[in-house]
Formats: sequence, C-alpha cells, structure tokens
Amino acid sequence: MPFTNRITKLFKIELPIIQAGMVWVSGWELASAVSNAGGLGIIGAGSMYPDVLRIHIQKTKAATSKPFAVNLPMLYPDLLAHINIIIEEKVPIVFMSAGNPKTWTSTLKAAGCVVVHVVSSTLFAQKAADAGCDAIVAEGFEAGGHNGRDETTTMVLVPLIKKTVSIPVIAAGGIATGHQMLAAFALGAEGVQIGSRFVCTNESSAHINFKNAILYSKEGDTQLGLRSLAPVRLLKNDFAKAILALEKEGASSATLSEQLGKGRAKKGMFEGDMQEGELEIGQVSALMDQIQPAKEIVQEIWNDFTAAVNQLKKMPIQKEV
Amino acid sequence: MPFTNRITKLFKIELPIIQAGMVWVSGWELASAVSNAGGLGIIGAGSMYPDVLRIHIQKTKAATSKPFAVNLPMLYPDLLAHINIIIEEKVPIVFMSAGNPKTWTSTLKAAGCVVVHVVSSTLFAQKAADAGCDAIVAEGFEAGGHNGRDETTTMVLVPLIKKTVSIPVIAAGGIATGHQMLAAFALGAEGVQIGSRFVCTNESSAHINFKNAILYSKEGDTQLGLRSLAPVRLLKNDFAKAILALEKEGASSATLSEQLGKGRAKKGMFEGDMQEGELEIGQVSALMDQIQPAKEIVQEIWNDFTAAVNQLKKMPIQKEV
Repeated sequence: MPFTNRITKLFKIELPIIQAGMVWVSGWELASAVSNAGGLGIIGAGSMYPDVLRIHIQKTKAATSKPFAVNLPMLYPDLLAHINIIIEEKVPIVFMSAGNPKTWTSTLKAAGCVVVHVVSSTLFAQKAADAGCDAIVAEGFEAGGHNGRDETTTMVLVPLIKKTVSIPVIAAGGIATGHQMLAAFALGAEGVQIGSRFVCTNESSAHINFKNAILYSKEGDTQLGLRSLAPVRLLKNDFAKAILALEKEGASSATLSEQLGKGRAKKGMFEGDMQEGELEIGQVSALMDQIQPAKEIVQEIWNDFTAAVNQLKKMPIQKEV
Repeated sequence: MPFTNRITKLFKIELPIIQAGMVWVSGWELASAVSNAGGLGIIGAGSMYPDVLRIHIQKTKAATSKPFAVNLPMLYPDLLAHINIIIEEKVPIVFMSAGNPKTWTSTLKAAGCVVVHVVSSTLFAQKAADAGCDAIVAEGFEAGGHNGRDETTTMVLVPLIKKTVSIPVIAAGGIATGHQMLAAFALGAEGVQIGSRFVCTNESSAHINFKNAILYSKEGDTQLGLRSLAPVRLLKNDFAKAILALEKEGASSATLSEQLGKGRAKKGMFEGDMQEGELEIGQVSALMDQIQPAKEIVQEIWNDFTAAVNQLKKMPIQKEV
C-alpha cells in the first residue's frame, strides 16, 4: 500500500482519492476505472432508473474486484427502489447526499454498507455523525453541481467541520490536482472527492461537447444559480445566463422552475446541447486542459501530491517563535 | 530568522504573515504591533483623510523600527494626496487594490517603494506583473471586504494565478490559522494576508461591538452583497439584510446606492452600530472566538503552521504509483 489512513482503511482502498458520483457522468465505466486505479469509484445513481442502476452495479462488479460506491441524492422519487437494489446487490459503500442523514443511515448500516454523507455545513456534519455515518464529505462553494446555501468555501468549511466531528472528513470542491489535495489535507481532510476532473476522462459518460466545453472554460465561467430552488454551480451557457438574468430581476421560484423545466441536465451533460442544456461543473474546470484515462488522472494526482509533500518537507523552517 | 523565502526577503520580515489593510480597523497601533511581532503590518488608508494618513505613518515609524506598509484602495478621491504622502514619508511597501496596476506602480517603484497589488483574477494578476509589481495578493471569494466579480475561491484562485505569473503570490481569503496558512502554501502561495483575525485584536481600531459580533458570528453569517456596485462580504445585520432583500427583488444599482448611502462602514465598524452599519468581514469569522494581542496571533499562527508542517512530514507516504 502506498499510503494508509482512516479513509483508506474504511474503504479498503489504496489511495484516498474518491471520484464524485455525478449525474449523467459517472456510470460503471468511470467508477470501475477509478477503483481499479486504487481510488474509490462512485456510480452516480441520481440520473438512473432503478433497473439502470442495477445494471451499472452489476457491470461495475464485473469490471473490478475492488471496492466501489453508489452516490444517492435523496431528492429523487426512486429513492426506496434504489436503496433496495443497493442492499440486494451488496454495494459495499454508499454516499448519500441532499437529504437528512437520519432517514436511511441505520438501514444501510444494518445491511452492512459503509455510509458516508455529503454535507455543506457543520450542522449537517453533526447530524451525519449523530446518525452513525462512517465519514463525511465536506463540500465547499467552489464545487460543481448542487451546493450549500451558506456558500462556505472548502478553505473555511473543512476546518469548521473538523472542529465539530471526529469521524474522518473528505474534502470536496476546488480540488483537481495533488497540490490542492495537499491543501485539503493541511485543512484536516483525510481524503478528497474530485468531480470535475473526472468528467474529462475517456470513461465518463459526459457528452464529448460537454468535455470540450470544460477544457475551454476559463476563470469566472461558472456561477452558482437557482439559489431559491436548490443552488447549483453551472457553466454559463445560454440556459444558465437566462436563469441568472431572471434571478437578477428578482424572478419567483415558480418562474425559475418553469424556465428550468424537465430534463435539462440530461440534455446538456449527456446529450451535448451546449446552449440549452444544464451543465454542472466546479470552478476548477478553469485549471483543466485535457481528456485523459481515469487511471492516469488518479496517478497524476497522487504523484503530484507526493511531490508537493516532499516540497513542503524542504521548507526551511528553523523554529517556533 | 525562523524562515526565509521570497516574501520574507522582499519585505525584509521574519515571518510571511501579512496583516491586511482594513478601513476603520488597521491604524498605526495594529500595523506596528504586527510588524513588531515579525510579520508585516499594514495601515489601511482607505478610511483616512490625507493628514490622518500622515499621522498614522509617523506614529507607526515611531512605534516600530521594522518594515510596514500602507494599503491604498484606488477608488477613493484622495488618492493623489495619499500617494504624495507615501512618497514623502518614504513608506517602504505599498499594497494597492481596487484599480489598474498600471496607473501608479512605476511612480511608486521610482520612489523606492516595494509595490504589491491585490487581485481577484488571473487577468489582473497578469496586469500587475506586467506593470512591474513585486508581488501579488490573490484574494478569494471567502475574504471579507471588497471582492472579485468572478467569485473564485482561494482554493482555485491561487493555483490559477501561480500558473500565470512568476512573481511571488500571497494568498488571502479564508485564512485565520496555521493550518489554513499551510493549505495556502500547498497551493503555491509564499505568504498569507490575514484580515478578519486581526480585527479581533486589542490594537485594532474596530469598535468593541464589531469585535464581539465577529466572535459570536457563525457559519453562514456573512454574505457577498452589492454585487452590481462593488461586491463586498458583509456580516448579515439589518443593513445587510435590507441590501440582500433589495438585490433578491432585482433592485437597480441606483436604488442600492441610495440604500447604502454614505458613511455606512464608519458607522458600523468604527462607531459600533451593529444594526445599521456596514460590517465587512470574511467567512473565517465563524472560526474565531477571542480578542487577543496582535503579537499573540502572529505567534499562534506561526506555531500552528510549523506544527502542521511537522504533522504532514509524518504522513506515511511510501511511494509514487
């Protein structure tokens, strides 16, 4: 093992690098590739009908003998069916998000799953710890996709949550390199969850138009929108600009819901409509410039992390003051 | 010297800890205390008439033999008078902000000043480097006070700027502890600029009501407002809530300007009106819980930083993969 800490032991993985579960992006191909590379791959169940989720779990099992996880956002109607499939298929690890940790943690734990909850505040971190979760993902404002209302960034959120809970904390939001991973560890994280960078892999099911749009995106090209519904970080295309303009004019939630409509995320991220689709991505997209195999990304991040640690070790600190 | 790098050499200081220039908060007492502690103290000129600035510079010189700086936001009408006083008084270091680095850098450099520019984007970092600045402060979204339009957080902004310029980068935003300082260094920073934590010092000229409000503030108690004028992070009091409500309704810049009025920052931060005053503070206020002498804070941050480095050194990394 190149490394051990509470996170690698909890998940029985080699490297504390976790690929975020992402709707329309992280199916069995990406999840198994990341797990095979020594990290933790996650199937994003949020965009899957129950029978589709079952197929992705079975294909992941066939493609890797290593641990993997399913991410389950609690805001979709098929939740109960998803939970049953996860238990039937003996998925070893579940990442829950967008809901109350109390609701399902004990059921999943009783079925033998390791349970992690994704939170954006210490309030929910505490709730997750109280509910018996094994670890927490602390997701900062810079992260892609759905996001907290307090807008607390990774730099501030991770130390706040570390002060509050004793279970291991995985940092998410603003992490795409080993240097950023080291920053997260300096803040107290014991693992990192990385979304955006894994969108631009050969194995992700994101449409090639979306992958290319990320590579060309620059600083300031994402913005948090739909604050009055469920805040989400969007790449600023025609759809996002229309939403942001409506919000600036003080539009009601109903108007925003209507503008959003149904199937926007699929249209954008999966079908490749770069004008009218919803494109969820993090601020780190500005740092990314190539599509790579997932394995290469895991290795690059780890090697960059070890190099950054070695750099820090050489810092000429003589003494305390 | 406990430490040397490009920043300590540039400023001729012992520790790469820089106290942010803050309107109504950082006069000669705070600036000289931080400089005497081995960091870099900065007089915030933004809230000072020219003759007041001159007095603060002279008192700082009398109170410390160590280097100090003046921070000059370029958006105030007395700018030219301030520049002349800085040159006449031979202030060794100037931090410019909120304006074009081209305008004054060469004049100040010709007068013998070290010149630093505060930026919130790589575009302005590049402009500052091109203008001949000696270093850059990269200020993330989580920072207090005036803030960039792109909302890029420290975690993402510092690596982006490091990729763009070769002059040293000082990270600002979300930093109040040595662990956060180490995170900034992992991202590539060679120094940190800390504002919020130095508000809660015995030497800061912030009103005691403001200091206490910061100590009691919690996660989510600050928010970026006045996005259509000049974005600023505010503690959410009655005034801030009124502004945020107007913005949610789609109020015009004129309406917001009228609501803001004149003298709000003085009323809040200096005179202690916690309801109707403007209270500028960073997200890290949620982490702070005591008022301390500035020297103690500098020492605590440095000792926490060295402890965090030593912790990282013990990380059991066996090898690259």
